[in-house]
Amino acid sequence: MSKYELLEHITSPKDVQALDTADTIALCAEIREKIIETVSQNGGHLASNLGAVELSVVLHQMFHSPEDEIIFDVGHQCYAHKLLTGRYHTFDTLRTKGGISGFTNPTESEHDIFYSGHSSTSISAACGLARAKKLKGEKGYVIAVIGDGSLTGGEAYEGLNNAYADADNLIIVINDNKMSISSNKSSLATSLARIRSTKRYFKSRERFQSLLKHIPLIGIPIRNKIVKYKYALKGALYHSSFFEDLGYAYLGPVDGHNIERLKGVFEVAKLRGKPSVVHIETVKGKGYAPAEQDPEHFHGVGPFNIATGESKPGGESYSKAFSKAICAFAGNDKRVCAVTAAMPTGTGLETFAALYPERYFDVGIAEQHAVTFSSGLAKNGMIPVFAVYSTFLQRAYDQIIHDVSLQKQKVIFAIDRAGFVGSDGQTHQGLFDIPMMICIPDINIFAPSSFLELNSMMYRAMYKEPYSSAIRYPRGGEFALPEGYEPNGEDYTVFESETASKKLIITFGRTFSTAYTAQQKLKDEGIAVSVLKLNKIKPIHPEAVKYALGFEEIYFYEESMKTGGIGEHFDLLLAGENYKGKFVLNAVEDTFVAPASVDEQLKEFGLDVDSMVNDIKGE
Amino acid sequence: MSKYELLEHITSPKDVQALDTADTIALCAEIREKIIETVSQNGGHLASNLGAVELSVVLHQMFHSPEDEIIFDVGHQCYAHKLLTGRYHTFDTLRTKGGISGFTNPTESEHDIFYSGHSSTSISAACGLARAKKLKGEKGYVIAVIGDGSLTGGEAYEGLNNAYADADNLIIVINDNKMSISSNKSSLATSLARIRSTKRYFKSRERFQSLLKHIPLIGIPIRNKIVKYKYALKGALYHSSFFEDLGYAYLGPVDGHNIERLKGVFEVAKLRGKPSVVHIETVKGKGYAPAEQDPEHFHGVGPFNIATGESKPGGESYSKAFSKAICAFAGNDKRVCAVTAAMPTGTGLETFAALYPERYFDVGIAEQHAVTFSSGLAKNGMIPVFAVYSTFLQRAYDQIIHDVSLQKQKVIFAIDRAGFVGSDGQTHQGLFDIPMMICIPDINIFAPSSFLELNSMMYRAMYKEPYSSAIRYPRGGEFALPEGYEPNGEDYTVFESETASKKLIITFGRTFSTAYTAQQKLKDEGIAVSVLKLNKIKPIHPEAVKYALGFEEIYFYEESMKTGGIGEHFDLLLAGENYKGKFVLNAVEDTFVAPASVDEQLKEFGLDVDSMVNDIKGE
Repeated sequence: MSKYELLEHITSPKDVQALDTADTIALCAEIREKIIETVSQNGGHLASNLGAVELSVVLHQMFHSPEDEIIFDVGHQCYAHKLLTGRYHTFDTLRTKGGISGFTNPTESEHDIFYSGHSSTSISAACGLARAKKLKGEKGYVIAVIGDGSLTGGEAYEGLNNAYADADNLIIVINDNKMSISSNKSSLATSLARIRSTKRYFKSRERFQSLLKHIPLIGIPIRNKIVKYKYALKGALYHSSFFEDLGYAYLGPVDGHNIERLKGVFEVAKLRGKPSVVHIETVKGKGYAPAEQDPEHFHGVGPFNIATGESKPGGESYSKAFSKAICAFAGNDKRVCAVTAAMPTGTGLETFAALYPERYFDVGIAEQHAVTFSSGLAKNGMIPVFAVYSTFLQRAYDQIIHDVSLQKQKVIFAIDRAGFVGSDGQTHQGLFDIPMMICIPDINIFAPSSFLELNSMMYRAMYKEPYSSAIRYPRGGEFALPEGYEPNGEDYTVFESETASKKLIITFGRTFSTAYTAQQKLKDEGIAVSVLKLNKIKPIHPEAVKYALGFEEIYFYEESMKTGGIGEHFDLLLAGENYKGKFVLNAVEDTFVAPASVDEQLKEFGLDVDSMVNDIKGE
Repeated sequence: MSKYELLEHITSPKDVQALDTADTIALCAEIREKIIETVSQNGGHLASNLGAVELSVVLHQMFHSPEDEIIFDVGHQCYAHKLLTGRYHTFDTLRTKGGISGFTNPTESEHDIFYSGHSSTSISAACGLARAKKLKGEKGYVIAVIGDGSLTGGEAYEGLNNAYADADNLIIVINDNKMSISSNKSSLATSLARIRSTKRYFKSRERFQSLLKHIPLIGIPIRNKIVKYKYALKGALYHSSFFEDLGYAYLGPVDGHNIERLKGVFEVAKLRGKPSVVHIETVKGKGYAPAEQDPEHFHGVGPFNIATGESKPGGESYSKAFSKAICAFAGNDKRVCAVTAAMPTGTGLETFAALYPERYFDVGIAEQHAVTFSSGLAKNGMIPVFAVYSTFLQRAYDQIIHDVSLQKQKVIFAIDRAGFVGSDGQTHQGLFDIPMMICIPDINIFAPSSFLELNSMMYRAMYKEPYSSAIRYPRGGEFALPEGYEPNGEDYTVFESETASKKLIITFGRTFSTAYTAQQKLKDEGIAVSVLKLNKIKPIHPEAVKYALGFEEIYFYEESMKTGGIGEHFDLLLAGENYKGKFVLNAVEDTFVAPASVDEQLKEFGLDVDSMVNDIKGE
């Protein structure tokens, strides 16, 4: 008999609705086991998903997806939802090429209403979905599930501020697991903590729970009961003036691992006649001891040993090289500050945080604030380094233009996860940072091809450039480098062919390694090709353009979007010099990139050695 | 004797500090008169500036700029500040070429700490400035002045959430004038209105005011008094759990036109030992009856008659053409919705709001929410049109990628003020929308050259295209068009020279008119040039590229940033077809564009008739 005897028969939410309480509890246990098993193999988001099992099950029992629309903010808690909506049998393919996504994805299931991946969007999306239902006279609820971490992003507030009073079909579930991606010291976090610790909270929770025992969970009479118990409920339900001032019915906090309590609170929320906020409390990593003990490590994790919780130790990475570099600079210069938007682990800032806590700022999932705040630090004499994933920097586009570039402040953008990111897929690829920044005046962009180069470029950005710089580096480690390779500290580096060549490869970042390997391979076949490695990709050094003019065929490889990128810009610079040769640009054209390994993605877009060799050979 | 006998002697804040209360009040009257006089000539932001006169004067009396740093959010209230900081004698040049900016501008004065122009950034900037002061052990306060409208933007909350408890040098002034740029129905606005209407507010205000009478405004003893009056103050000062939950001392509301009350509240704020929120109430348009009566009209206004308040009636504009178009579509199709981020007047949505209130959404200054909300509306079957200025759409870059393009929803972006905007200057130019969107998969961009074309492109975007589209159109009216010009509904239009030509102009939007005029002028001189007008600038129709291949010289004119734009992209498409001719791209290169008239700006960047003629003639 399968150890998933309940789960393997769940083909749609209807099957979940048919379960009694005992089986529901048993199903939750199976879901946890399946999630742990799969993530231990494929990697993924573990702790947050384990915390949302009961919530997901109850949502599918109390609502009727897809007529009722459930939106998961950021998507770190959608695995149980996936297992309940017909994806149990494909769940083993999680985050692999051709497999199911680690985030909600509407092309995968009608139960995935929106793509998720970036934080704090769910309330706004839910407002739109709920309003359209009202305008069309359609029934059904819209439920946004959002963690307390996502509430630190400004768009969440914009959304909260825009639910109209008649939106009785809108329910916002605050999944309060007492930490965002990383715990931060923000006022909101402190405020929630204070709320949790008040006597009033405990008292009202008890009263609410005892009251719920007397409310029938199914059926019509409840509305009358609510009217009757109105004042009792008013006192019993936890009262936060913040949400109520914004016009919501505020319900909770409720134990988010208690099936009956969850059912009860949603029954009440459905009947309040106005938009509701349901505040539930969950434990990150619930049911898997190593994750409960270290939820941050198990937030996003690679394959691990289930028995011990141990992960294979990661190799050297650009994030670690960045960590060493910024700590070294900060040790020598008290002006150096580090800013992160809730990603100290991912970006490698944990050591900095421990060594220089007074100069370390985790601002929550608030990239806009991070950028403007950094500009303020810079204006008064500090050297702020904002370490951020490429994809999340998109959130602060206007602030880069308006608050950094225009202000002529020196802010260093340490752009991690630039280029393909692998299994996180469409929402997380670092492919837009170049086109988004290429048009912004005065900001340099550097692209290291080695750890040492990352270090030297940081030095240059911090101490040699007058204005801001971005240093974009990939997820993972160094690719193969020429023997004894050392950065030359210049804007570009030439790797001439040994014999005269008419062909030139231009590239930057980690695809330089690929180009260099292709060059060697072609040499072995008697084909001469030179390589121009761009170190500073914005602005382009005029001498680099002049060098390229000497070739009849130019092959430009760019691990980024093609349109609006460096390659197009380089082509125009060539046109300005009357270049008449062939110019071929290989990059990512007008598409989003699905989950797969980084190597698979590089190959898919012609940025691997074989593709380069074939291009040059004209095959 | 000058009617500005006090003002003309104010050369720095020190002169303001020397005034007694009577003279301070007199100074405020002079400032108002000067602002009204200047804006009646030059246009500008009137109502908001008139509301902040006493506040600005008192801030410069109670603090010592520039050691104490005053940040004005969005900058709609900085005119009095400019008059107090050495710019009285140049104030007549407000918003003109070479003159002083309508927003704060650090290159203009050491008292302008940050550029302003975009909303909701001041708290984040102030957090950074204040934190840097702490880290360096520097004295001085940082004061962010932010209106209630700007509080509807998410970054304001991100900022509020990130002031550390020890930031006793941070004061946030909420200038509550009971409306944002346009009044909106958001929850926050309602909440503030409710706060204002409570008995408790009036009662506590009176108590606070009577208490203030007993607090000496100058000197050391006040701290002890505060300790002594701690509990009295606690009850007396208006208590908003929202700000206090976030860790701020919350002071107010205070009458923002009462000099003594303002001085009192800042005296208290300075000594609270933690970050403060000072809530003041002001009247938009204060002191000028027409502006008090219609503050929305006088928010941003062109030249007007001071005696009557009458403005010269505006001519036809793209905004008005858009207004007619969307109202017509909405009349025929109940799915059509209109979304604005607090700009119904500027974007021309007032008529829509009156005709179709249930499908009209003013979300506050919350572009991020506007975009994600629109995607939610679209997902459930509506046709949302988000009307927004080009420069403000930058705020929603990630949402366009993550919540619209990736979701494959159909959202129409009606991008007003695309290209040069004239006297609003650096912060408001619509020059980044093309490079920011050119790399985003599946989103079309249209560029009409006439009102009729705007209408037909909207139709196409709403009913003929599978995914989202942006339609970008300029501030102001149509430029001269060929006689009997009618849009052809195609992706591009060719205007052949009468005799064979080797030269081609490519352009789009309003600079087509310029190109057409240049073509006629050159014809009169016997020089043949053809014009290729791009109607859909993303994606480029392959036949348009093929047409261009037939010319030896191509001159591309783009009213947008050069790097990462359409011209570079077109050049690459030509390279892909082995084009060997000359390609010259004229656009805005790597700079921000200062205030001037649109015509002056077009000329400065070579996008006027004479420049085009000279380019073609090789002069």
